[in-house]
Amino acid sequence: MKHNFGAGPCILPQEVFKQAAQAVLEWDQTGLSILEVSHRTPEYEEVVAETERLVRTLLNVPAGYSVVFLQGGASLQFSMVPVNLLGDGQKAAYLDTGVWANKAIKEAKLFGEVAVVGSSKEQNYTFIPKDYDIPKDAVYFHCTSNNTIYGTELHAFPKSPIPMVCDMSSDIFSRQVNVADFDLIYAGAQKNMGPAGVTLVIVKDEILGKIDRKIPSMLDYKIHIEGQSMYNTPPVFSIYVSMLNLKWLKAKGGVPVIEQENLAKARALYAEIDRNPLFKGTCAVEDRSNMNICFVMENPELEKEFLKFAEDRGIVGIKGHRSVGGFRASMYNALPISSVHVLVDIMQEFAEKHA
Amino acid sequence: MKHNFGAGPCILPQEVFKQAAQAVLEWDQTGLSILEVSHRTPEYEEVVAETERLVRTLLNVPAGYSVVFLQGGASLQFSMVPVNLLGDGQKAAYLDTGVWANKAIKEAKLFGEVAVVGSSKEQNYTFIPKDYDIPKDAVYFHCTSNNTIYGTELHAFPKSPIPMVCDMSSDIFSRQVNVADFDLIYAGAQKNMGPAGVTLVIVKDEILGKIDRKIPSMLDYKIHIEGQSMYNTPPVFSIYVSMLNLKWLKAKGGVPVIEQENLAKARALYAEIDRNPLFKGTCAVEDRSNMNICFVMENPELEKEFLKFAEDRGIVGIKGHRSVGGFRASMYNALPISSVHVLVDIMQEFAEKHA
Repeated sequence: MKHNFGAGPCILPQEVFKQAAQAVLEWDQTGLSILEVSHRTPEYEEVVAETERLVRTLLNVPAGYSVVFLQGGASLQFSMVPVNLLGDGQKAAYLDTGVWANKAIKEAKLFGEVAVVGSSKEQNYTFIPKDYDIPKDAVYFHCTSNNTIYGTELHAFPKSPIPMVCDMSSDIFSRQVNVADFDLIYAGAQKNMGPAGVTLVIVKDEILGKIDRKIPSMLDYKIHIEGQSMYNTPPVFSIYVSMLNLKWLKAKGGVPVIEQENLAKARALYAEIDRNPLFKGTCAVEDRSNMNICFVMENPELEKEFLKFAEDRGIVGIKGHRSVGGFRASMYNALPISSVHVLVDIMQEFAEKHA
Repeated sequence: MKHNFGAGPCILPQEVFKQAAQAVLEWDQTGLSILEVSHRTPEYEEVVAETERLVRTLLNVPAGYSVVFLQGGASLQFSMVPVNLLGDGQKAAYLDTGVWANKAIKEAKLFGEVAVVGSSKEQNYTFIPKDYDIPKDAVYFHCTSNNTIYGTELHAFPKSPIPMVCDMSSDIFSRQVNVADFDLIYAGAQKNMGPAGVTLVIVKDEILGKIDRKIPSMLDYKIHIEGQSMYNTPPVFSIYVSMLNLKWLKAKGGVPVIEQENLAKARALYAEIDRNPLFKGTCAVEDRSNMNICFVMENPELEKEFLKFAEDRGIVGIKGHRSVGGFRASMYNALPISSVHVLVDIMQEFAEKHA
């Protein structure tokens, strides 16, 4: 039995794996594998439509927003956002809360001016900047809701006087957000939505088509919206598995229910980190992420031993990112609280051994 | 028992489906599904490396070429090619042999001048233009090796005085080509390489880095080459299944062996189309594709009845594209010749019924 705390691609529900494996052998009694069906069949078009309905229902997406499934991950969105929204000579505002936010800033600079309104880079991104102004003369404000590498999360979003764009790759579907507060939300699927290979974009229609740049078709949101995520061959299987996973989430009671479970998991692990004399957290307590929990040991020399101790007991994926070190326990929607209890027990056992 | 003649995403070998389904449940005794493993584990990095080795071996890729796996399909390559190769004020030459070639032309025009050196558009792309000159002052020549919609194929490539770029989406791995004759080859995977969601690019390193345009990172071949297909999270499962499929091809004897099988399948069906008084081919005999065989009925009023007749007997995916009408039988690598024999028998049975 493995306990998969990997940062992503990450754990999905066991029943989703079973359904997906069955569909690879034979999909819904069609006599065909899901891997060999045309995306232009009515049956598969219904998969895409159902996945879109699930996104709309689970996140309460208001009218006036389009939902599309693209490729290229958040990394391609770093360019697509400014290509579509930031005209020549215009300015965009970015909040710099980690490596991914920083990459988004770098790509936006190719298309216009970028004002970095706040940054915690000098403190290795251990907190979320809070006292900053969003310039009213910028065309949009961009933020990253959760910083996978550093274990910080925006628990509250600013009131933005300009359209707000958010990279929600690593905490979408994990907690309630008011989509109406945002003008564009994007997320690589490979945390709480599905497997790698598909990217979710939710965009308020009225913000599009306002700049006169010639946009390559594959980077143009309007073309993908018009094509209903089928302008080109979509990542068939990744969307299908996302549908299975979002159905699982809906059957559980949706985002409000999973949010409580995620809070319980995070509280359990943070409590142990704060209690156990061998361990300590790495970032500002008020900005701690409920998805990715970063911690180190008071005595760094013990870290290698603890990693092996945990891995020998079935823990997978807790080695920290090289830029933070130590450990990172990612606790996405599908990770059962029982796995968190196993990790806490291991930390306690290790502390007793070294008492 | 279904006989899948779909144009793509298309049939893959049954043993690949079985192996892929097993990996979705548990991958190689890791205790984890292939859908939940990190792309940064040594085990998965080896999958990408092995897939690259298989591409190099099966296609005899010479030294000096990079092989990368991207997202966005051929459609994104329509933009990436000119973004990387066509500088401001420069000219590229394109051969217009179908809808996809035409889309490539449209995207290239955003970045520079395009000279269309030959086109069969006025004749609904029923043949491949042959007597054309490739201008020496263009920076590259672009062609499409196989035209899925119209059922035509370039059985010989021109001697190009300038770098040659080829969209091989629908016939790569189906026949021998001399990679050294090309400077850049790209292909959406979803025909003979694997499932939808991954794109293969083979590029001669020396043609890159020659223009001074600022390129968004995700569109920059050099960045993906440097990142060894891992600049961002790759489409994990699509690459994995491609590896399984290419292993299957290698075990069969590789491209020379499958090429003979594909020729035998194509000959069997074209022979019946030419022999059977009810049917006729739609394009120039010398340009007929061995992958996608387009045909119509002498009496178009019988087409609906024949389609049902064939579908009732397990034939899947032979409805022709709306721009050609009639039927299209796609016969990719994994389609067994027994399926072709079934289709031929059905055509004969139908002819007898209407004798």
